[in-house]
Amino acid sequence: MQRAVPSPPSCSSTSHCFPLNHRHTAACGSETAAQPQKHEVRAGSSPSDPSRMRSIVCFYICYALCLCLGLACVVCVCVWNSRWRGGFAWDGSALQFNWHPVLMVTGLVVLYGNGAVLYRIPLTWGHNKLPWKLAHAAVMLLAFVLSVVGICAVFDFHNVNHIPNMYSLHSWIGITATALFTAQWVFGMIGFLLPCTQIALRKFLKPIHVWFGSMILMLSIVACISGINEKLFFALKGNNNASQPYSNLPPEAVMGNSLGVLIVAFGLVVLKILSNHEWMRPDSRPEDGVYAPLLQEDND
Amino acid sequence: MQRAVPSPPSCSSTSHCFPLNHRHTAACGSETAAQPQKHEVRAGSSPSDPSRMRSIVCFYICYALCLCLGLACVVCVCVWNSRWRGGFAWDGSALQFNWHPVLMVTGLVVLYGNGAVLYRIPLTWGHNKLPWKLAHAAVMLLAFVLSVVGICAVFDFHNVNHIPNMYSLHSWIGITATALFTAQWVFGMIGFLLPCTQIALRKFLKPIHVWFGSMILMLSIVACISGINEKLFFALKGNNNASQPYSNLPPEAVMGNSLGVLIVAFGLVVLKILSNHEWMRPDSRPEDGVYAPLLQEDND
Repeated sequence: MQRAVPSPPSCSSTSHCFPLNHRHTAACGSETAAQPQKHEVRAGSSPSDPSRMRSIVCFYICYALCLCLGLACVVCVCVWNSRWRGGFAWDGSALQFNWHPVLMVTGLVVLYGNGAVLYRIPLTWGHNKLPWKLAHAAVMLLAFVLSVVGICAVFDFHNVNHIPNMYSLHSWIGITATALFTAQWVFGMIGFLLPCTQIALRKFLKPIHVWFGSMILMLSIVACISGINEKLFFALKGNNNASQPYSNLPPEAVMGNSLGVLIVAFGLVVLKILSNHEWMRPDSRPEDGVYAPLLQEDND
Repeated sequence: MQRAVPSPPSCSSTSHCFPLNHRHTAACGSETAAQPQKHEVRAGSSPSDPSRMRSIVCFYICYALCLCLGLACVVCVCVWNSRWRGGFAWDGSALQFNWHPVLMVTGLVVLYGNGAVLYRIPLTWGHNKLPWKLAHAAVMLLAFVLSVVGICAVFDFHNVNHIPNMYSLHSWIGITATALFTAQWVFGMIGFLLPCTQIALRKFLKPIHVWFGSMILMLSIVACISGINEKLFFALKGNNNASQPYSNLPPEAVMGNSLGVLIVAFGLVVLKILSNHEWMRPDSRPEDGVYAPLLQEDND
């Protein structure tokens, strides 16, 4: 029913080709069905289309917001733990616990979110996909390593201080997010980086990978908010002269709550970018197919 | 570039027409551009298509899961508060507080989620849209009323017991979710129920309405999880003989944590249903347009 019109070769090799008007339904079901449509609309839109330019501008506004909110989250969580919680150490004390929020927010939220939207940047679309695929995997690996170190920080702190692990709802959700992230990274590497992976397996995996990507971010945000809320109740009991209770909203409470609001705002912006099909990376060359294995892309 | 083939009249008037194979990009950007595609693919798929049947079966599995998880959430939150928290009253005591989790989970999560997926049920697609539009609005209104009563329960309990309101991160996220839900309901009524609303305004509002629908559910889940986590830490301090501390994972803690897991699972299933464009309700009659005002639909 839909006629596939291949995009002109120049469009796949220049960085000025931003086919933002295409409708990509990859995440919605059969990607085979969606592919002809992508090339069709792409070939039919000219670079000077006002709607295309508007879409590019909208993307970069969202992306700038994503970068600024991510940076604000990292700054806030560092300032909170260094200024009000005494700083950092790795000695089993409360200072070791402070690595936990910093590494989880930086790894499982900010780096993860930025890694997820990497493919959406129109500036990268005219280039070979491989470096961006490797960059996506590398950012996600770094996010994963930070998250695992963040979890080790709290487990070690609990063990040294004879506090049970894994009893709170926060910990149940957080460990689920990290376990799913581990599975996502392993299946992502097997599915999209190993050259021996069958095209059919990539086709099957891609919508699942995209869907789980968003859901893991959602779980991370749920875990972070419940963790910050719990920490503020633990820390701000007001039972000594040095601290006011949480209910008085002292500066530390305002900082912690603001960090939570920033994390939620960052998550919403990332999920908005991920859900907008206009901003999905188009296929670089129709003849390669969407799921060209790594070695093929390497030779692009 | 895309040829719009109107669907046959029989397809718009029978309950056996489930055009599940269409690709609806309404939530992704310009709906005008997406519309021809919907009718095209719809007309091209026959009711006996294996992929269509598979899609219908998948939907009903997800929908059954959504109903079961929603019911399990309501049962769990009621059992938790009646068996372990002493039951319910409206007298300013802790028993009044117990209405808060019950009404928020039932209203802002379960009823809200079920109201959101109402349009996705294929059985409703062959029928006049108006009753389903009114049912969607009515379920959302009931969800809204329960949420407001749930918030009143905790504000009143705090005021009677001289506990400050609105200081925790949980309360900040929860009140934001409820405020956005209020705005969503008001703009939804103005945009989609009032007959005087311009078609152009509906076209503008629909993707925003769909997007905010999912985001409000996400915020509700974040608020619920942080609230359950906070409540379990407050309630299970283990400082009296009657209760064990949360860290010992007594039965109440397992019940509360399980409720949290069920809420997250329910939210993921609802978001999965909402994000699958194959399951979006197709236009009942192409000549009416997607955004036919209420009175037009009334006369269908």
